[in-house]
Amino acid sequence: MSQSTFGNKFKVTTWGESHGKALGAVVDGCPAGLSLQETDIQKFLDRRKPGQSKFTTARKEGDQVEILSGVFEGKTTGSPISLVVYNKDQRSRDYGNIAYSYRPGHADYTFDQKYGFRDYRGGGRSSGRETIGRVAGGAIASKILSELNISFTTYTKSIGPINCEEFDINEISNNKLYMPDAAAAEKASAYLEECIQNQDSAGGVIECRITGVPAGLGDPVFDKLDAKLAQAMMSIGAVKAVEIGDGIQVSASNGSSNNDAFYQKNGKIVKSTNHSGGILGGMSDGSEIILRVHVKPTPSISQPQNTVTHDGEPLSLEIHGRHDPVIVPRAVVVVESMAALVITDALFANMSAQMDHIKKLYLD
Amino acid sequence: MSQSTFGNKFKVTTWGESHGKALGAVVDGCPAGLSLQETDIQKFLDRRKPGQSKFTTARKEGDQVEILSGVFEGKTTGSPISLVVYNKDQRSRDYGNIAYSYRPGHADYTFDQKYGFRDYRGGGRSSGRETIGRVAGGAIASKILSELNISFTTYTKSIGPINCEEFDINEISNNKLYMPDAAAAEKASAYLEECIQNQDSAGGVIECRITGVPAGLGDPVFDKLDAKLAQAMMSIGAVKAVEIGDGIQVSASNGSSNNDAFYQKNGKIVKSTNHSGGILGGMSDGSEIILRVHVKPTPSISQPQNTVTHDGEPLSLEIHGRHDPVIVPRAVVVVESMAALVITDALFANMSAQMDHIKKLYLD
Amino acid sequence: MSQSTFGNKFKVTTWGESHGKALGAVVDGCPAGLSLQETDIQKFLDRRKPGQSKFTTARKEGDQVEILSGVFEGKTTGSPISLVVYNKDQRSRDYGNIAYSYRPGHADYTFDQKYGFRDYRGGGRSSGRETIGRVAGGAIASKILSELNISFTTYTKSIGPINCEEFDINEISNNKLYMPDAAAAEKASAYLEECIQNQDSAGGVIECRITGVPAGLGDPVFDKLDAKLAQAMMSIGAVKAVEIGDGIQVSASNGSSNNDAFYQKNGKIVKSTNHSGGILGGMSDGSEIILRVHVKPTPSISQPQNTVTHDGEPLSLEIHGRHDPVIVPRAVVVVESMAALVITDALFANMSAQMDHIKKLYLD
Amino acid sequence: MSQSTFGNKFKVTTWGESHGKALGAVVDGCPAGLSLQETDIQKFLDRRKPGQSKFTTARKEGDQVEILSGVFEGKTTGSPISLVVYNKDQRSRDYGNIAYSYRPGHADYTFDQKYGFRDYRGGGRSSGRETIGRVAGGAIASKILSELNISFTTYTKSIGPINCEEFDINEISNNKLYMPDAAAAEKASAYLEECIQNQDSAGGVIECRITGVPAGLGDPVFDKLDAKLAQAMMSIGAVKAVEIGDGIQVSASNGSSNNDAFYQKNGKIVKSTNHSGGILGGMSDGSEIILRVHVKPTPSISQPQNTVTHDGEPLSLEIHGRHDPVIVPRAVVVVESMAALVITDALFANMSAQMDHIKKLYLD
Repeated sequence: MSQSTFGNKFKVTTWGESHGKALGAVVDGCPAGLSLQETDIQKFLDRRKPGQSKFTTARKEGDQVEILSGVFEGKTTGSPISLVVYNKDQRSRDYGNIAYSYRPGHADYTFDQKYGFRDYRGGGRSSGRETIGRVAGGAIASKILSELNISFTTYTKSIGPINCEEFDINEISNNKLYMPDAAAAEKASAYLEECIQNQDSAGGVIECRITGVPAGLGDPVFDKLDAKLAQAMMSIGAVKAVEIGDGIQVSASNGSSNNDAFYQKNGKIVKSTNHSGGILGGMSDGSEIILRVHVKPTPSISQPQNTVTHDGEPLSLEIHGRHDPVIVPRAVVVVESMAALVITDALFANMSAQMDHIKKLYLD
Repeated sequence: MSQSTFGNKFKVTTWGESHGKALGAVVDGCPAGLSLQETDIQKFLDRRKPGQSKFTTARKEGDQVEILSGVFEGKTTGSPISLVVYNKDQRSRDYGNIAYSYRPGHADYTFDQKYGFRDYRGGGRSSGRETIGRVAGGAIASKILSELNISFTTYTKSIGPINCEEFDINEISNNKLYMPDAAAAEKASAYLEECIQNQDSAGGVIECRITGVPAGLGDPVFDKLDAKLAQAMMSIGAVKAVEIGDGIQVSASNGSSNNDAFYQKNGKIVKSTNHSGGILGGMSDGSEIILRVHVKPTPSISQPQNTVTHDGEPLSLEIHGRHDPVIVPRAVVVVESMAALVITDALFANMSAQMDHIKKLYLD
Repeated sequence: MSQSTFGNKFKVTTWGESHGKALGAVVDGCPAGLSLQETDIQKFLDRRKPGQSKFTTARKEGDQVEILSGVFEGKTTGSPISLVVYNKDQRSRDYGNIAYSYRPGHADYTFDQKYGFRDYRGGGRSSGRETIGRVAGGAIASKILSELNISFTTYTKSIGPINCEEFDINEISNNKLYMPDAAAAEKASAYLEECIQNQDSAGGVIECRITGVPAGLGDPVFDKLDAKLAQAMMSIGAVKAVEIGDGIQVSASNGSSNNDAFYQKNGKIVKSTNHSGGILGGMSDGSEIILRVHVKPTPSISQPQNTVTHDGEPLSLEIHGRHDPVIVPRAVVVVESMAALVITDALFANMSAQMDHIKKLYLD
Repeated sequence: MSQSTFGNKFKVTTWGESHGKALGAVVDGCPAGLSLQETDIQKFLDRRKPGQSKFTTARKEGDQVEILSGVFEGKTTGSPISLVVYNKDQRSRDYGNIAYSYRPGHADYTFDQKYGFRDYRGGGRSSGRETIGRVAGGAIASKILSELNISFTTYTKSIGPINCEEFDINEISNNKLYMPDAAAAEKASAYLEECIQNQDSAGGVIECRITGVPAGLGDPVFDKLDAKLAQAMMSIGAVKAVEIGDGIQVSASNGSSNNDAFYQKNGKIVKSTNHSGGILGGMSDGSEIILRVHVKPTPSISQPQNTVTHDGEPLSLEIHGRHDPVIVPRAVVVVESMAALVITDALFANMSAQMDHIKKLYLD
């Protein structure tokens, strides 16, 4: 595994910069025979599209995906699927300070340190637009998983200090913040208005629940299912913490309350509670998989910030332009996409875990 | 890379079960010319050794490491380094219930689901003893890093509800719990006594700080430095949450307080705060790298627990024997080892990031 | 890494089908700071372009490459470089028999067996057009290598029974067959005319010589430099044998004549002969690297051939249309490109082989 | 994948030097539920054991393999299988010239160039003893394949100028040279006697035939089945050429004679000839897979050879001691083992090639 590719059997390679000609992904290892159309992918991309509310950037980017390979007569062929989204607006403009100074909370300084220079246009490769490729890949993974009865529920759990108290699954797509609690969504909206007034920004928490995952996925050592989920989540820009199941609460709990008892129900072994978040010893245990990510506030704020130029000269920087006061709502589909990539890859990896499975495929 | 191997350039492959003949690791990709002796590795293994206090298992395991290959005349040769630790006590004993029932909080059920059956002796491959290979590999990585002036400080930040309030670096190795706060260590000891009385167990938090990491390590997309650290940490059994820098606190903070301002100091660009935990955009920013892991309570407790046999028959299970009431102190060195593997791998991967670096090595 | 990706540090992922919308590649792991323009890549693509002589297909494909990402202000940024070549002519046409029968010597049957069905348009993914991505990637690798004074000479060594007897390096680009022997090129042309008359096709041999490779590249076990070259070469469609140095002749030789003696020349250790082809124990030995590939005759011939339909019904198949009577001349640049990918990847992998090299980069 | 590991899903990591403490392998990705005993592996190791005839080295090495992990109650558990072979005789002895000079045809010089120094004892890591790990891994792969009705016939096709003219499968294990032609074996023995008299050595050709491989294994682009076989074969020390099917003969043949016609037989689509060697477009076509490797003469010969010391001083070197005049017979099982690794890995990789296969395993 490395660099711009995620996954071992189901692999997504993303490419493209914020203000380059295009962004895209190559999805390799997709099984043949999956029905796939551009609309399957567009649906996912639309969930991350800006301009959906006043809290997301106002530009109309469009972000129309095109499938360039790997699909024939409406079905995947097993060959790599190349996906491209052309950038509509590449007008060269004056990036001013940003071209030669380091925005706090951004990757400008680290890019320069790693590569010697950087594509500063709109954050270049470190832009949130890089997630277009992830989401496009995740859309295909989700389609595969849905045929295996595996499904996702992903939503905003909190924004700034505002937490969801209720869980109404139908409410999630009802508000622009993807919160399962209408009252919390209203409060969060008010809080974000306040942030805008203060030329400031907010963070939040995203939760993802995955149902239908068969028990046994994930590898018991380094490629534990939760370990790969943790990598996937932390690889999303702005994520600073990942929790599985009870997460940070386990450190203050006791074994007697944290352990989930097994019992039999309708001939199936299940758990009476789910503190583990559906993963035991790095393998799915058949319960719902639950994970949460903590997203930092948008680093681009319009109030003056102290920083330096490339040469170390002090500078007071104000970042104007179209910036969401919160990243969270648009990151919901990114979290879901990355989770889908992990589950799909684990599902394929698991196929050769038992001699009996191998014989079932090759000798039956 | 996958399954029992961690790393892309500096790779550690671990093997072995709790009660098998031996456990070990193969370290591949270690550069030639590093001074290496068995004592370098033994020092690390001794930090995870049981029997050091009444809160860690009483058996005297020994765990003497032997180098079988890859070192010649006291130096690494560039060939794979094979490390082995023989299990002293492999007497076959009666595993009773454990052989045919599912311990709550353990991987028994998921192993059976994945592989069709399992090596139930002492948890088999899912035992904490699997970390012997990780720590042996981490010891070598740490030796490499120390030659590059990169160093680690790793300690117990909390046990159950007891948090460290002070930070005295010298105190860490002064108490059996590896806490940098003597008073907290005392309270934590009392709390653990209580847990033992209650036939229960406790969790806790481990923090790791890494200094001297050059800026620019880590890859900007899927192999972000924090993403690989998150995988590494979550791959340690019992870890349920990982935080970088301010971690979970970022979700309730604002951009103006979460951003770290850049300024120049002695001709070097540095940050006035370190909310980012030393990583921006997935690359090291030259500040101290800070991460925390949340460890669940030991799942093996002696009070009766409800569970089922392999056949789904209900069972009340009491797990007796030598079990630590808390995993945290012995996991400190595992956290440090895994972090060292990630940094070493990122360091090697980074060498070809710039044409100038390549020319420096091949043309100078 | 696997499937449609080649390389571990310098990685090329190719995608696209013969008659799909486009073909392309993503080049990941390219160091930052390399001057790169579309013309650098176009030059390579033009060498594989059809329509250059009567022995290569007559269609004017154009095959204009476009860089979509990874280059900023004329230099590579370290981010993935996405390259695309749009197919000019995608008119849907009647593929007749080919859509539902198995062409002898082609991958039709094996594609159906692997994936359940196939994109039959022009061979789909198994078309020689897949090499567009390889050559585009190889062009970038070659540019890197040329900055390190590593260069390639690749040519047709034989076509059918006609072997080159002379080696005139200037003649290579002088004839359409890329032969370093004008007389042989003339004879080969006559032979190919004969093949066309007979509704038949010819094979041939390509040789590649690489100079300037520093000693020590390649890994001593599975990733031997010759092993990776062998994979790279055999992964080119139609290649059925690969030789390094003396190749097949070694089996009938003796140790005394096959061993290359070392001696010192101008303070450098060199070899008096080069039977090894520049590789000893899987590592470059500083001499010229020499490899040869044996290419089978074009399987598409217009004389009737016995085959079956998908359902196993017997069929006499005549394949008409634009097919080269020999693949060899157009494969010359593919061989060179694949060799360049291997050398570049080995060069980067080798950077962390010694502690001294690591210190030179990070401590100096 | 890289360095000392071969395979992506079924992975073998080898370690150990000729005169170190031990050699071994870790086999990772072996499915659970395979019956496995040390004797299964020992049988394979015995085929490469020296001391079997006067043409193989006289020392009695023993090479007893021990399984240290991954097997429980006679079955593989899915966890990594650690295999070790301790070196019996590690007496430190005087390596004389060899310690500080470069043997022609050996990897001494290239090891020094790559790593700065080398373990010179018996060739260190570049010794033929490294293949112990490959053969141990190959034995396990072969056991898996035999349960899927895939089998191997591997033999010496020629030694020096002596080719087998007959093919009697029963004769293969009847002579010490593993030739399927008793008369050729006799002539080859005489030829080897002559080589010994001349203080010289011989090369030869090994052929491997694999039956029962289902159609569709291998990936159509870089991981073609023949490409991986080529890497696997060329990664064996002393191999300088690899052929698939008709191999080098294809370059002088015509399409009409090289293409294999398809026809139907007993309801199955088969080929009337097998010039392709069982692989079309990089995927198995259901016919017998045929490959050949060309092995160079043993580089260690006792006649004086010109070479230099580490410092470039000229030296006349005579290599005495126990050296086979030919490597070929002992390499037969190495070729078979490497082929088994490739087929097993391709078999596992192929499991997720079709949605229908995935559904068969997870939904049935």
